Amino acid sequence: MASSRRTVLRAATVGAVGAAGAAASGLPATAEERTGNGPRIGILLYDRFSLLDPTGPAEILARLPGATVTMIAERPGPVRTDTGDVAVLAERAIADVRRLDVLLVPGGSERGVLGVFERPNLLDWIRRIHRTTQWTTSVCTGSMILGKAGLLNGLRATTYWSGKDYLETLGATYVPERYVRDGKIITSAGVSAGQDLALYLASLLAGEQTAKALQLAVEYDPQPPFDTGSPAKAGPELQKLALRLLADSQV
Amino acid sequence: MASSRRTVLRAATVGAVGAAGAAASGLPATAEERTGNGPRIGILLYDRFSLLDPTGPAEILARLPGATVTMIAERPGPVRTDTGDVAVLAERAIADVRRLDVLLVPGGSERGVLGVFERPNLLDWIRRIHRTTQWTTSVCTGSMILGKAGLLNGLRATTYWSGKDYLETLGATYVPERYVRDGKIITSAGVSAGQDLALYLASLLAGEQTAKALQLAVEYDPQPPFDTGSPAKAGPELQKLALRLLADSQV
Repeated sequence: MASSRRTVLRAATVGAVGAAGAAASGLPATAEERTGNGPRIGILLYDRFSLLDPTGPAEILARLPGATVTMIAERPGPVRTDTGDVAVLAERAIADVRRLDVLLVPGGSERGVLGVFERPNLLDWIRRIHRTTQWTTSVCTGSMILGKAGLLNGLRATTYWSGKDYLETLGATYVPERYVRDGKIITSAGVSAGQDLALYLASLLAGEQTAKALQLAVEYDPQPPFDTGSPAKAGPELQKLALRLLADSQV
Repeated sequence: MASSRRTVLRAATVGAVGAAGAAASGLPATAEERTGNGPRIGILLYDRFSLLDPTGPAEILARLPGATVTMIAERPGPVRTDTGDVAVLAERAIADVRRLDVLLVPGGSERGVLGVFERPNLLDWIRRIHRTTQWTTSVCTGSMILGKAGLLNGLRATTYWSGKDYLETLGATYVPERYVRDGKIITSAGVSAGQDLALYLASLLAGEQTAKALQLAVEYDPQPPFDTGSPAKAGPELQKLALRLLADSQV
């Protein structure tokens, strides 16, 4: 197994943006600089995505034997989150990615998701890549983007708790589960649900034993100080406050 | 509350790296381009950090009223994770950050953490910033870095499940809890535990009602498909496999 992830620091150019971070020897190799015979996993970033949506799953999926996880966007370079605080580097342009074993589409703020709706090239790319994938997946409002791309017509799917009515306008039947698989599409609930999705996906890609070990690898033994993580548990007052905190923190 | 996070898209230079992603109008503003009267939260990145350690907390803490979350490193620019798959942008150099309300030190691979041990300027900066903070915090093996900086002498603390003996060589008394507060230092267990830490920290910074609403905001209602997130629940065989998957996925 070790050889499948052997680091191969090549002298080759690593691309205009990657070079800024990895030009000097001794720095971590990029996914593309390693050999990998496991699943090729691609995550689509876009302006105003929600930070945990791609990073929770990436933390888990990057540890599958031989896997590579690549952040992809319209153009390579930093892509900023919905709060404006953090930028994650997109390593590849959509134009340069023609097939993936797994596509994951994260959620974002309303403005972020509507921004993708207005970019036919992003929606076209999702449809094209979907034809090549083993699994097409989403976290949170990422399912709205799959829906807008026409991929959820007649399917059972889930999304962020406050977005269920909107999801149904895009052709899906909303199911109030942590993650929902219909055919080769797996959608998950809001933000942190991507981690549950990733463990399920890990079991599909590499078996239950590996997935269970990955749960320990990230010490995912949740003990939040409160129990207000679903709208039913939180109640109407906290629902209102949650939506206000989200709106106020978005740029 | 809305005015505290009002977007102020300034014409001013946003720095060599930030400019690549945010030069064009209409892109999300950086944290520094917004006005913010809430806590200034800084996260120290270093080569081979673990992706979820900083991003789980950042997702939650960036939504505190008026808060800013800034990724900080020895130099601004992309900082790559321990698997090599993902790079997060450091927006500020340590030399330019002289005080913080909250410092968070993420964990990383063994090679990543030992890399910080060999950088006296990073350890000096942590000690200096710690004197200015309201809370100094860590996720996973980030507590080893706090320990190496001399901040855990005689304190109760926690860390990644496999690192408890090593933590005690750095002067701390290991406590097997999800997060441990001693004085103004709060350490947390491995990787995903940063989210539990962040909700607790949110309650200290902004009160329980806000923290509970943030739990709903990120729909943190964990439902992993398995129950193997602690070494005791996983057992010796999965412990061995987890450590092997980690070793094989690191660059």
